[in-house]
Amino acid sequence: MTTAALSPTDRTTATRGRHRMVAERAALHALLAEAMVAHVGLTVGSGPDAHPLVLPTAYAADPDGPDDGGSLYLHGSVAAGWLPTVLAGQVCVTITLLDGLVAARSGFHHSANYRSAVVLGRPRLVEDEVEKVRALDLVVDQVVPGRSGTLRPHTRKELAATAVLALPLAEASLKVRAGGPVDDEPDIAAGVWGGHVPLRLVAGEPVADADAVGVPVPAEVAARAAALAAR
Amino acid sequence: MTTAALSPTDRTTATRGRHRMVAERAALHALLAEAMVAHVGLTVGSGPDAHPLVLPTAYAADPDGPDDGGSLYLHGSVAAGWLPTVLAGQVCVTITLLDGLVAARSGFHHSANYRSAVVLGRPRLVEDEVEKVRALDLVVDQVVPGRSGTLRPHTRKELAATAVLALPLAEASLKVRAGGPVDDEPDIAAGVWGGHVPLRLVAGEPVADADAVGVPVPAEVAARAAALAAR
Repeated sequence: MTTAALSPTDRTTATRGRHRMVAERAALHALLAEAMVAHVGLTVGSGPDAHPLVLPTAYAADPDGPDDGGSLYLHGSVAAGWLPTVLAGQVCVTITLLDGLVAARSGFHHSANYRSAVVLGRPRLVEDEVEKVRALDLVVDQVVPGRSGTLRPHTRKELAATAVLALPLAEASLKVRAGGPVDDEPDIAAGVWGGHVPLRLVAGEPVADADAVGVPVPAEVAARAAALAAR
Repeated sequence: MTTAALSPTDRTTATRGRHRMVAERAALHALLAEAMVAHVGLTVGSGPDAHPLVLPTAYAADPDGPDDGGSLYLHGSVAAGWLPTVLAGQVCVTITLLDGLVAARSGFHHSANYRSAVVLGRPRLVEDEVEKVRALDLVVDQVVPGRSGTLRPHTRKELAATAVLALPLAEASLKVRAGGPVDDEPDIAAGVWGGHVPLRLVAGEPVADADAVGVPVPAEVAARAAALAAR
């Protein structure tokens, strides 16, 4: 894993709120390890009809992956409409966790606490089978750590039906907001309450499907639910 | 509010998972009312250097807004680098709530439960001051319902520093996944556990900032935290 500081390019540098940018690569990897949904942006079409499209998707990050800065893996059906588009150009993958509501003393200063990573680049189609299997297992383990090791191997048919893309984590930036509001002095002096409300994603009890009633909840599923319940 | 069913265009129709698309406009509005973060996609630059950019942002939806299908409001600093780009072209706004982890009996069928709205269109700069103030209040109330009515009015300077954009909710689609995994028969017969883990965003206790210690937590902030704690 590279420990080089994040060096955002012009394309990933905020024009506003630069003081909220975080340069520690470890903080980027911590966010990527914790979140479970990425929003992938691509440009569809060309010329005056071109338009952006943003789709939510599962992902996994491998700080030690073979791409510059580590690898961000995405996957999808080989039949997905967006796949050729993604492979033909650049994508932007944004991964955000909402950490809190910020109730300021004016509408203007209302905000949210969050961590958000923006990764830009040209994805690579993963063709090596060992890497492909490893990436798919990482995507499963992103959702339920340790789950992939308990499952049967992927079949040839499943691997053929699935496309895996790798995006270098080289051109990446991280923006973080935490804490309470930044209010104007007159509003503070007026005695209005200001503060924040922490938010976190928590899990309920695992729900067995109809065909699994009576089968014990596997340790890794129970551990995942417990870890997300106890925070 | 229009009650017309959602009629996604080709651009907002999933090429995969069409059975997960939901046509009820009420379901779209319920998601837009519940979520707190939008991911806005835009295309930056032109020609071979053009690339997508996806940024998280606050928003508010007004089903009765003046745009076709109702209005989705975004706001930002007039100094934001993305503002001219957004006004020059089309944007894609995607709003996703993660509702659960789906632990299938194979890696291939692992999934997530979610609700995700995709809205495409050309934003309109809101120039009418009454609409602009109302939109900014809606953005505050999206985070803490009722908060805007307790705050001092926006100042001229604040309004001048803030750009408000409205996107029609006409070209919108909604995709929903719920429940347990869809597994293959042999994996079910093998007796592997399959099911899902519900997820929800919950709030902790409101945290007063240093200047608000001793000031009672306002009713609307307490109610927001309680509503998000009790689900």
